[in-house]
Amino acid sequence: MSTPTPSVDLNCDMGESFGAWTLGNDAALMPFITSANIACGFHGGDPAVMKQTVRLALRHNVAIGAHPGLPDLVGFGRRDMAISAEEAFDMTVYQLGALAAVVRAEGGHLHHLKPHGALYNMAATQPALAQAIAEAVYKVQPELTLYGLAGSELTKAGEKIGLRTAHEVFADRTYQANGTLSPRRQPDALITSADAALAQVLRMVQGGWVRTQQGHEVAIRADTVCLHGDGAHALEFAQRLNQALRQAGVQLQAGRPAAAK
Amino acid sequence: MSTPTPSVDLNCDMGESFGAWTLGNDAALMPFITSANIACGFHGGDPAVMKQTVRLALRHNVAIGAHPGLPDLVGFGRRDMAISAEEAFDMTVYQLGALAAVVRAEGGHLHHLKPHGALYNMAATQPALAQAIAEAVYKVQPELTLYGLAGSELTKAGEKIGLRTAHEVFADRTYQANGTLSPRRQPDALITSADAALAQVLRMVQGGWVRTQQGHEVAIRADTVCLHGDGAHALEFAQRLNQALRQAGVQLQAGRPAAAK
Amino acid sequence: MSTPTPSVDLNCDMGESFGAWTLGNDAALMPFITSANIACGFHGGDPAVMKQTVRLALRHNVAIGAHPGLPDLVGFGRRDMAISAEEAFDMTVYQLGALAAVVRAEGGHLHHLKPHGALYNMAATQPALAQAIAEAVYKVQPELTLYGLAGSELTKAGEKIGLRTAHEVFADRTYQANGTLSPRRQPDALITSADAALAQVLRMVQGGWVRTQQGHEVAIRADTVCLHGDGAHALEFAQRLNQALRQAGVQLQAGRPAAAK
Amino acid sequence: MSTPTPSVDLNCDMGESFGAWTLGNDAALMPFITSANIACGFHGGDPAVMKQTVRLALRHNVAIGAHPGLPDLVGFGRRDMAISAEEAFDMTVYQLGALAAVVRAEGGHLHHLKPHGALYNMAATQPALAQAIAEAVYKVQPELTLYGLAGSELTKAGEKIGLRTAHEVFADRTYQANGTLSPRRQPDALITSADAALAQVLRMVQGGWVRTQQGHEVAIRADTVCLHGDGAHALEFAQRLNQALRQAGVQLQAGRPAAAK
Repeated sequence: MSTPTPSVDLNCDMGESFGAWTLGNDAALMPFITSANIACGFHGGDPAVMKQTVRLALRHNVAIGAHPGLPDLVGFGRRDMAISAEEAFDMTVYQLGALAAVVRAEGGHLHHLKPHGALYNMAATQPALAQAIAEAVYKVQPELTLYGLAGSELTKAGEKIGLRTAHEVFADRTYQANGTLSPRRQPDALITSADAALAQVLRMVQGGWVRTQQGHEVAIRADTVCLHGDGAHALEFAQRLNQALRQAGVQLQAGRPAAAK
Repeated sequence: MSTPTPSVDLNCDMGESFGAWTLGNDAALMPFITSANIACGFHGGDPAVMKQTVRLALRHNVAIGAHPGLPDLVGFGRRDMAISAEEAFDMTVYQLGALAAVVRAEGGHLHHLKPHGALYNMAATQPALAQAIAEAVYKVQPELTLYGLAGSELTKAGEKIGLRTAHEVFADRTYQANGTLSPRRQPDALITSADAALAQVLRMVQGGWVRTQQGHEVAIRADTVCLHGDGAHALEFAQRLNQALRQAGVQLQAGRPAAAK
Repeated sequence: MSTPTPSVDLNCDMGESFGAWTLGNDAALMPFITSANIACGFHGGDPAVMKQTVRLALRHNVAIGAHPGLPDLVGFGRRDMAISAEEAFDMTVYQLGALAAVVRAEGGHLHHLKPHGALYNMAATQPALAQAIAEAVYKVQPELTLYGLAGSELTKAGEKIGLRTAHEVFADRTYQANGTLSPRRQPDALITSADAALAQVLRMVQGGWVRTQQGHEVAIRADTVCLHGDGAHALEFAQRLNQALRQAGVQLQAGRPAAAK
Repeated sequence: MSTPTPSVDLNCDMGESFGAWTLGNDAALMPFITSANIACGFHGGDPAVMKQTVRLALRHNVAIGAHPGLPDLVGFGRRDMAISAEEAFDMTVYQLGALAAVVRAEGGHLHHLKPHGALYNMAATQPALAQAIAEAVYKVQPELTLYGLAGSELTKAGEKIGLRTAHEVFADRTYQANGTLSPRRQPDALITSADAALAQVLRMVQGGWVRTQQGHEVAIRADTVCLHGDGAHALEFAQRLNQALRQAGVQLQAGRPAAAK
């Protein structure tokens, strides 16, 4: 847990189109975020989409991250799979390398890595998977920042191995007393009011705490806020959050060094 | 075309197993070659196989190359596809990057790139595809050597953009007057006698020429010889060729700088 | 070539979404067509999408066809691939069976098969592929109608083996003197005016002829008209064409027996 | 649980090659089994392999079953995936239909369905998945026999919906007091002696009981015995078991009507 910070990163999953299929609203959202997690072909994205998305991010000076997922295209990487730690390592190395080459071919630099969907969720709670992913990043590009759920096994594993980490918080999810997200199946897991979501982010970023679903205040480290790329109000909320943070004097930028460093 | 050379590279496609399926005889062949073209997941290979194969190559001090293929797993990348030059560029960047990361995670260095199967054949004759592949290599890792059919559009494109190239020759294929391979459908396209195949390689490597199917001698540049990994006699032939070349005083090594440089 | 007919089928490619990705406007278009070609998982579609699309078609009393494609998901089955006739047979049987089972599980009946994209185009001109596809349909469900480009190798192969065929015409493509489509690369290959497209369909359906790009009138058999599911004006054009044909006294229905029978 | 039976089915997974990759020893094993579970393209198998395997089974008069798996080619369908019951239904319908068409094109009849790998295991213990699979079979071809682990949720679901079922037993696995298999991680989960494995099968088939790992005798219904297609001794064991059962007067045949009927 960290002290309040004057800066935060706004990240969004991007480049999740595939072949003839378009997903998300990347071009419209890009001006309002500071880092983009770009799909690497396993759950979404393909080599052409990756290149287009990297170019878009470079034009907007948005930090570029690899967004590796499970090899489950039809399930969009959202279904848990019983992969081994070694498989998690291997698929992270592969996807990270693929995107890194696309970025290099476009003259840019890779900034971070954030696992996608079920891989993100499993790595948040399973230490062996978390360690495998952290090790993959460390062995390929140790200068990258590892994005993970705030306070999760993934950020822990990253810090242990010596990576910079970015603790990720959610605007539209409620939290439990131990700092974890309320499970989605639970009522009140989602914050549907945009105003309430905005207020939660400001508290987390400026105050370093979050009000739990049960009404208590718990400390939370908020290095980066996850914005959604899909949905009717995603763009509008990104704009509002971007503006509200700037008006509150919060600097929007990727790459804040980890507090622990 | 070059003058006779005292050294040559013996390359072989490797890492073409996939998931539960094993292909080839990588471990047995590795001692007799000097460079390995490792499949990158599109026509064969998967992240785990890639890692195992890279480890094997590093143990034998064999130069490692990326071996990108068409996205045609069930066809093993052997069926021509009407891809655009831009698609060839994109899929080369992606696969090159993926393997480069695997190699880096294992502490090695990537040495070359050789397209696989139909991509190799199409790039040998289609200038736009050849240029796209050369550009992909150049933009991602300009220090790599580009392997292509001797005298093909691919080596030409590599040389034009400023890459090192390795002109590849075949022990078991006959040649035409213009230095190209006899089409496979043609009778006598294949050299089935191991002795004749050995003799052809020695002529190409030591003499810098090949006797065509029609009986003429034409000049050929032989930087690297393609060995097959599959088939009943692949291992035996690799051993014999390796020994014959050494006995003839030819140094076996990857990475001979291109004669043009 | 056939005499003018009082009825015609309006077909449209459907069910081409995949996993998290949506494509087309199936629900809106379904009321205006009489037959749906449903993707079978190789170029688009997945088991869940197939079921939803079959249900939608059954609700609208629209005839259901299998729409098999090349195994090229990222290329949406639009890139020619050098497949053998046997591979064309095998992939047609497989995809046809998959959709047939989905239809049976929903209590419906399969009505036809129309190859997709590059498979359709290759089968229009390559007799061996055309014959393989016709044979696949014949061996699995000989009661199905085979849809193919009017006057193509595919309809010929279907007729030769004893299948019902539906000769397909296009509203928005110009024709050559020999009854084939003008190649897309050519100027004036596309008819961009909706009025002109409507008029062309009425001539083909009611008159049994089409005015070629060069201004001549040639006979054409128009059993079914291909409507596009994508694009800004696809829905509007479908509505207009549906209405115009009805007003002209043309009966809209799938499954008109082949004129040759 | 049933009374001892004078007949039993010997089944084996087959057709698990894919593209350029060969797996198993189908041709050699086929003479010694009475039913073949043929992979349907999701975890292994492809349209060409399916056809070849169906032909092989028909030549040997071996009953043909669909062997649907999870969409996890690189993991060979062996990794649990968090699929929904509806997804299990959809993927079963699709794969069943694909194989059924291949069988029909070859003039044969489909006899049964047995899920593969992780899908088999999950369906053995998760009632919702079991019911979805049973329902898929019932809605597409209710005359098929559903193969599942003896006494599992899958056979229960099949019997409840009105399908014939075949309770499957294993020669080389030990059993627990409740009739389930000893978990693989456990010591003594596997029976490594061929003699002991043979004896276990004879007891199950002739006596209708099995000696548990703890030494007790529990009743078990043994309609079909699972033979492995891979491994050094698979073929030899299949031959010995086939011979031993015949010598003991047990009739070897697929399709024994379920005892409950």
